[in-house]
Amino acid sequence: MRIAVVAPSCPLKRDAAARVQAIVTARGDCELVIHPQCFLSEGHFAGPDEARLAALLEVMADPEVDAVWFARGGYGSNRIAEAALADLPSAAAEKTYMGYSDAGFLLAGFHKAGLEVAWGPMPQDALRGDHGLGDGVAAVQRALDWLVRRDPAALEPRLEAPAMAFNLTVLSNLLGTPLEPEFAGVDLLIEEVSEQLYRIDRTMFHVTASPNVRQAARIRLGRVSDILANDPEFGGDEAAIVEDWCRRSGIPFGGRADIGHDSANRVVPFGAGIR
Amino acid sequence: MRIAVVAPSCPLKRDAAARVQAIVTARGDCELVIHPQCFLSEGHFAGPDEARLAALLEVMADPEVDAVWFARGGYGSNRIAEAALADLPSAAAEKTYMGYSDAGFLLAGFHKAGLEVAWGPMPQDALRGDHGLGDGVAAVQRALDWLVRRDPAALEPRLEAPAMAFNLTVLSNLLGTPLEPEFAGVDLLIEEVSEQLYRIDRTMFHVTASPNVRQAARIRLGRVSDILANDPEFGGDEAAIVEDWCRRSGIPFGGRADIGHDSANRVVPFGAGIR
Repeated sequence: MRIAVVAPSCPLKRDAAARVQAIVTARGDCELVIHPQCFLSEGHFAGPDEARLAALLEVMADPEVDAVWFARGGYGSNRIAEAALADLPSAAAEKTYMGYSDAGFLLAGFHKAGLEVAWGPMPQDALRGDHGLGDGVAAVQRALDWLVRRDPAALEPRLEAPAMAFNLTVLSNLLGTPLEPEFAGVDLLIEEVSEQLYRIDRTMFHVTASPNVRQAARIRLGRVSDILANDPEFGGDEAAIVEDWCRRSGIPFGGRADIGHDSANRVVPFGAGIR
Repeated sequence: MRIAVVAPSCPLKRDAAARVQAIVTARGDCELVIHPQCFLSEGHFAGPDEARLAALLEVMADPEVDAVWFARGGYGSNRIAEAALADLPSAAAEKTYMGYSDAGFLLAGFHKAGLEVAWGPMPQDALRGDHGLGDGVAAVQRALDWLVRRDPAALEPRLEAPAMAFNLTVLSNLLGTPLEPEFAGVDLLIEEVSEQLYRIDRTMFHVTASPNVRQAARIRLGRVSDILANDPEFGGDEAAIVEDWCRRSGIPFGGRADIGHDSANRVVPFGAGIR
């Protein structure tokens, strides 16, 4: 199992790369190839659009690569997603693609194009210590357990295939774009990080107004972390907001989900791809 | 000329109300009726949805009211816009509606329903002092000059009807909802406040992917104020971002526009309504 790491959004930290390589060496059940593009830096991004796109297409086209693992989120994968889809290498269909957060733009578009994608922890998560020392390592192990041997223990525990998972803001920003997948019958998991509650309310208004999203089987809410101060107090929490917009839009609310911007984040294979 | 003030989003400050009443008294060419709902407060909003909707429908239905002036922005008009449109009083078509920022949800939906709407300063702007003392008064006078006597000096100076103006984030969040108007042939003015540049880039990706927005005659960029720190530096300014997405999407970029979250903000009547 050869896993290639590229960074379609922001640069990977050297520390994270070293930790993940050490984990892979200790496991001995896979090989990790971290593309040098991961360490490029140009303004907000891990190199210019052209460099990020070229690295992504290179590993997608490589028949020796079994999985493409997005290095981290941040912002920027939407800027190259359509170009990657316009020029899909034939070997691209033989791989699994994993990431979350900003990588959701790619997960959406790639899934729509028929590729096998999954929401799950990324190499940069190796640096997390949100629940105690070593938690980032557990997140990376979980991702590898699923990539290498499809360990069901890595999966979000209440998935009903077909499923999808998105950061709420990313989902909102891909609606109406060529990356928007079909949500009919989907167990749609959402999560959020570093937003004010009024923004979450506004984004839920936008997302649940979509006739496509209204075809989802249910919406489930992952963790909403690092909520920024709302001035004044909003007047309800994130679960009340999501339930309210589900009720208004007629989408069943399926309760909470075990995903989020943290080391406990679980794997969600898109579509029927729980295999 | 009787002008009714209601607050579909956040509460109006008492100071602002007093200043605007003093301005109106001194002018002597109009009457201002500030609805008591403007001072309600429930969590983030100027009272619960029901109270904001009831006040809005009340002034829309009042045949003695010539104009409805939204008190201020913030957040929340989207939560009652569809309900207001579902129950449009017959007297609603006899009035002009003015506001900006979060009120853009109402401007969009009301314009789509055939009502006369305009982007322009609001009562809360009386408190602005961004370019010096008394600037907020100038903004309020400008709005009243247009509401009362259609003074062309109040207008954005390079408008080519039909025109529309939106806060970029509000525009992004109304796409795909029942509030979305037709943009074909429109001089589309956008502005932004208190966002990071990476968010502006992401929102431009979303907005310019819309086939409807791609029918606009041109996009013009108003002021982008209080830009929040981007870590690291984004690598381009707001004009470069907007020009880039216009180029990618084939929408003509028409240069800068004289609107923004400040006291210099000009009036933009929607549609062909420059009269």
